[in-house]
Amino acid sequence: MSVEDNTFEITFLPDNVKIQAEAGESIMEIANRGHIHINASCGGEGVCGRCQVELREGEVTASPGLYLSEQDFAQGLRLACRAKANGPATFYIPIESRADSTSFKKATKAEESLEVEARDPMVRQYNLEMTPPDQADNAPDLDRVSQALAGQGLTDLDVELGAIKKMPQILRNENFQVRASVFFEPPLADPQRPPYGRLLALSKAPLDETYYGLSVDVGTTSVWIRLVDLATNTVFPAVGDLNSQISFGEDVISRIVYASKGNGLQKLQSQVIGTINGLLARLEESYPKFRENLFLITAAGNTTMSHLLVGVEPKNIRLSPYVPPIGSWPSIRPSFLGLDVASHTVMKIFPAVSSYVGGDIVSGVLASKLHERPELTLFIDVGTNGEIVIGNQDWMTCAACSAGPAFEGGGVKCGMRAAPGAIEEFHYEPERKKHHLGVIGRGLPIGVCGSGLINIVAELFRGGVISKQGKYVEGSSPLLREGEDGWEYLLAPAQESAGGRDVVLTEIDIENLIRAKGAMFSGYQTLVEAVGLSMGDLERVIIAGGFGSSLNLDNAICIGLLPNLPLERFTYIGNSSLTGATLALMSTNKWLTAQEIRSKMTNFELSETPGYMDKYMATQFLPHTDGSLFGL
Amino acid sequence: MSVEDNTFEITFLPDNVKIQAEAGESIMEIANRGHIHINASCGGEGVCGRCQVELREGEVTASPGLYLSEQDFAQGLRLACRAKANGPATFYIPIESRADSTSFKKATKAEESLEVEARDPMVRQYNLEMTPPDQADNAPDLDRVSQALAGQGLTDLDVELGAIKKMPQILRNENFQVRASVFFEPPLADPQRPPYGRLLALSKAPLDETYYGLSVDVGTTSVWIRLVDLATNTVFPAVGDLNSQISFGEDVISRIVYASKGNGLQKLQSQVIGTINGLLARLEESYPKFRENLFLITAAGNTTMSHLLVGVEPKNIRLSPYVPPIGSWPSIRPSFLGLDVASHTVMKIFPAVSSYVGGDIVSGVLASKLHERPELTLFIDVGTNGEIVIGNQDWMTCAACSAGPAFEGGGVKCGMRAAPGAIEEFHYEPERKKHHLGVIGRGLPIGVCGSGLINIVAELFRGGVISKQGKYVEGSSPLLREGEDGWEYLLAPAQESAGGRDVVLTEIDIENLIRAKGAMFSGYQTLVEAVGLSMGDLERVIIAGGFGSSLNLDNAICIGLLPNLPLERFTYIGNSSLTGATLALMSTNKWLTAQEIRSKMTNFELSETPGYMDKYMATQFLPHTDGSLFGL
Repeated sequence: MSVEDNTFEITFLPDNVKIQAEAGESIMEIANRGHIHINASCGGEGVCGRCQVELREGEVTASPGLYLSEQDFAQGLRLACRAKANGPATFYIPIESRADSTSFKKATKAEESLEVEARDPMVRQYNLEMTPPDQADNAPDLDRVSQALAGQGLTDLDVELGAIKKMPQILRNENFQVRASVFFEPPLADPQRPPYGRLLALSKAPLDETYYGLSVDVGTTSVWIRLVDLATNTVFPAVGDLNSQISFGEDVISRIVYASKGNGLQKLQSQVIGTINGLLARLEESYPKFRENLFLITAAGNTTMSHLLVGVEPKNIRLSPYVPPIGSWPSIRPSFLGLDVASHTVMKIFPAVSSYVGGDIVSGVLASKLHERPELTLFIDVGTNGEIVIGNQDWMTCAACSAGPAFEGGGVKCGMRAAPGAIEEFHYEPERKKHHLGVIGRGLPIGVCGSGLINIVAELFRGGVISKQGKYVEGSSPLLREGEDGWEYLLAPAQESAGGRDVVLTEIDIENLIRAKGAMFSGYQTLVEAVGLSMGDLERVIIAGGFGSSLNLDNAICIGLLPNLPLERFTYIGNSSLTGATLALMSTNKWLTAQEIRSKMTNFELSETPGYMDKYMATQFLPHTDGSLFGL
Repeated sequence: MSVEDNTFEITFLPDNVKIQAEAGESIMEIANRGHIHINASCGGEGVCGRCQVELREGEVTASPGLYLSEQDFAQGLRLACRAKANGPATFYIPIESRADSTSFKKATKAEESLEVEARDPMVRQYNLEMTPPDQADNAPDLDRVSQALAGQGLTDLDVELGAIKKMPQILRNENFQVRASVFFEPPLADPQRPPYGRLLALSKAPLDETYYGLSVDVGTTSVWIRLVDLATNTVFPAVGDLNSQISFGEDVISRIVYASKGNGLQKLQSQVIGTINGLLARLEESYPKFRENLFLITAAGNTTMSHLLVGVEPKNIRLSPYVPPIGSWPSIRPSFLGLDVASHTVMKIFPAVSSYVGGDIVSGVLASKLHERPELTLFIDVGTNGEIVIGNQDWMTCAACSAGPAFEGGGVKCGMRAAPGAIEEFHYEPERKKHHLGVIGRGLPIGVCGSGLINIVAELFRGGVISKQGKYVEGSSPLLREGEDGWEYLLAPAQESAGGRDVVLTEIDIENLIRAKGAMFSGYQTLVEAVGLSMGDLERVIIAGGFGSSLNLDNAICIGLLPNLPLERFTYIGNSSLTGATLALMSTNKWLTAQEIRSKMTNFELSETPGYMDKYMATQFLPHTDGSLFGL
């Protein structure tokens, strides 16, 4: 250090980033300058206490206060916004204080992709101005309406029974100045065919132009809905809930089995309808009269979820040769299914490619723009049923992998869904043989969710606690012990857990994760090789699904779940199924594009594709039997 | 009588027809030779007793027997099949023994007109033969079906939810050889537009090709239905029943009033649906499984009945300017209305011209072929609401007349509907000042129905008992008396009536009939004059409706209900509303023709047409103030 240079270094762990600093700067200022995110919801005013950092080496000017007890202070905790640097120091940023940049990124991406070129929804509204009848012209009300529609170029419309029942009253109440809502059935096969129009409803012309559409993502685990003002393409925040079918089985296979027994199909249908109805009731709190102005629903779900939503027996989905009853769905009246919407509301369900590559993937690809771009792209939706699409604007192949429930926290001793209390983030310090936990909701841990499992296994593998074979390395950690299910690693002792029992990771859990990641990875390999390419040719990797948002890329590559590619090729796109459904809600053209995507996709049944099993067996190592795939 | 000529004359009353006969011939043989119909359901075997005739003059060889008591014989009754002529004689054929030639004629006509040029129903069936799925081709079931349909030229079909729910099971049960039922929505405005197809159902391909359609005539008083095998255009006998709405009002106005109160609309709808359901249950006795193979219903009714069937508030029909909510109906799912048919059944309702010229008239005109022929034709449906159409293949005008209830037996002291016990036929012998009654069902009389009223008034008018002014001529008959409502004619004393009370015809009854016939006649005049023609220009008169079948033409002309034209210009076509509906059931082309008929018709609101009231006033005589109209 020269006399001219009175700067010094502040080191931030766990990323080991070193930033030059001057005396008197706050630790927060220094971190910001280095693009290191530390939570500070008060903006650095010292009043929220969320920017706690742990002083590991050196000293700073700081004192205890409202948010730091004497004991905290003694253990090294400081508020980054209040602590002033006065010399070299090293800080550890606890998981709780790290900004969730991933979810910011995701949110930004999702909103961006919700732009459509044209406002051309399947339901459009028209203001009709008619001359009231008199003795010289006493044509029937509907003739008058038809003429007014014809005046706007709409001839040969079919008319809903519901639209005519209240027609006489509405026409007279509104003195024959009304709003007509017309649904245009998109052509199924021949795009040249004129769309078939259907008058859904006549209503009072409101002061504003608002009318609504709703996009729905029917997931096996969660259901999300999103209201859109179709007059202006204003997108409102999505709301979601657990799919209450979950009480009848966690994965699609168990749902199909349940549906095949007695009135199981009706029961599962009424469960998911009930879940959506609950979400609609929540929407109503913010948009009190949306139902009467809701005309269109687009819904995307996997093949099984779509069948259960409509109430079509899904039995054959799981029986070889895996023939789903319906790929491309006709228009459906959701009120007939029990959905709490008006009878005039029409529902379009995304088409499925196959039994295990469903409408949610078609919708997701639509959202991802894979089909619009020249780059060779891998689209992944990781879950119990992992779906893979590889292709670009010219061609697409797809496949589903039976990953098993590990990614959803299933089949794991202390596994759980990504809910409050789940260990999601994990950092292991090999030198100190200590770990740090990031728990959803920031309370005490209850168990481990799927992304947590990936992070734990990756960190322990890097730290030498887990071997390439997925076994614990004897003596590598004091937290290893022999439990009732064999060797296990103690993540949190009972007294530091919310459930009052030890939270552990067993070797069986590791095996399950390796099986799951192997199913995915061998799937990519099979599809890539089927078109004569190799993994390195992948120019983009798009990660979709709720899982994607919390996935740590380095860790996922480390265990061999994701291919070993430069990180900048990866993108998270969040709930792309909902995003795609929202796009199709706003644009008939997007809907038609989804049909094209579906018909373009070549489906591979992996279990029946030669070579798949060999590839799968080779994945049963960390990261892979062939280390060269991961630069090893 | 010369020695060479040993023939003699037998005279038959009341028609005063004289036939040459030889000794030993039976009276039946002689009558048959002269085309005089006498009932003989046993074919002349003497075992049915239905050919009783009354010997008025001369003698025959005959004796009493099983069917004739000594007393009958003494009063002159003989069995026509058993009595042998042996010299000149005069017989009176009682009404009971006259064959109902009118109804034979009607039946013949109706069957004749049920022929369509082409078999092109709106629902057609296709046999689909598909290759069962295997691992090489595991496309969704519906894709497979769509491809098979496309192979028969059917692309871009919409698909019913009902059709897909059972699809997987039916395909597999039938090893992918099934029958598809497809509905083609006829174009509404642009006939060049390709019809919009909709897959209604997949079903087991039956051994025969049978599938059904149903035509329905929804009348204010009665409802008739008729099953048709659409594969072969085999027409089964119609079945009918009273419209059970009748408990809530006899005419359309009282139904509209009832519908406007509380849940009156729902109540009336469920009544007529209940009536049709009852008829369907009767059909099921003869055609046990017709419902699952019933795909199409065509329904015709007056404007009010159509609205009540669908459950659309009919209030404005009776409020000036008489605007019906719906003229042209969209396709309707009758199962949604509560009809006991499968959800795949589609219903097409005939379009109405105006509030009082309904789909039954459009259907009736279709059946009458008025629209196909060059002759100037008057089409009449006589009833509480009498409808009139005048026109030919080039143009049509129409109007409705508020005839009042007299033709249905309403507003008449001893009036009743044309049901067993109603006096329908009446013959008056001026010389003997006696009358003969024809009672429906051949029992004792209860009252007088509409056609009976016409016959009685005409006969008494001819016999000098009723004056041109519609008043009784004092002293003209011993059966005239002053009753509590003024002068009346005793048709049957209490001891000869089924109801145990005198059956009479009052002067007020005559007034009501004159008002009713006047409303019709002034309607014809108004329409004829509106197009610059006169009554004599009418080349055909077609009488439709249940009433037509029992109408005596001479008598109807005599009182001024029908125009004074040669009898050969008149035709009865029975329930032309049901016939037209049946034609449209069998042929899309006929359905489209009905739409053309509807749009061709120019409707006149008589009450608002200048000159109508003057014409009406002039009709308030028998037959008319202007006797020259009736050759007087």
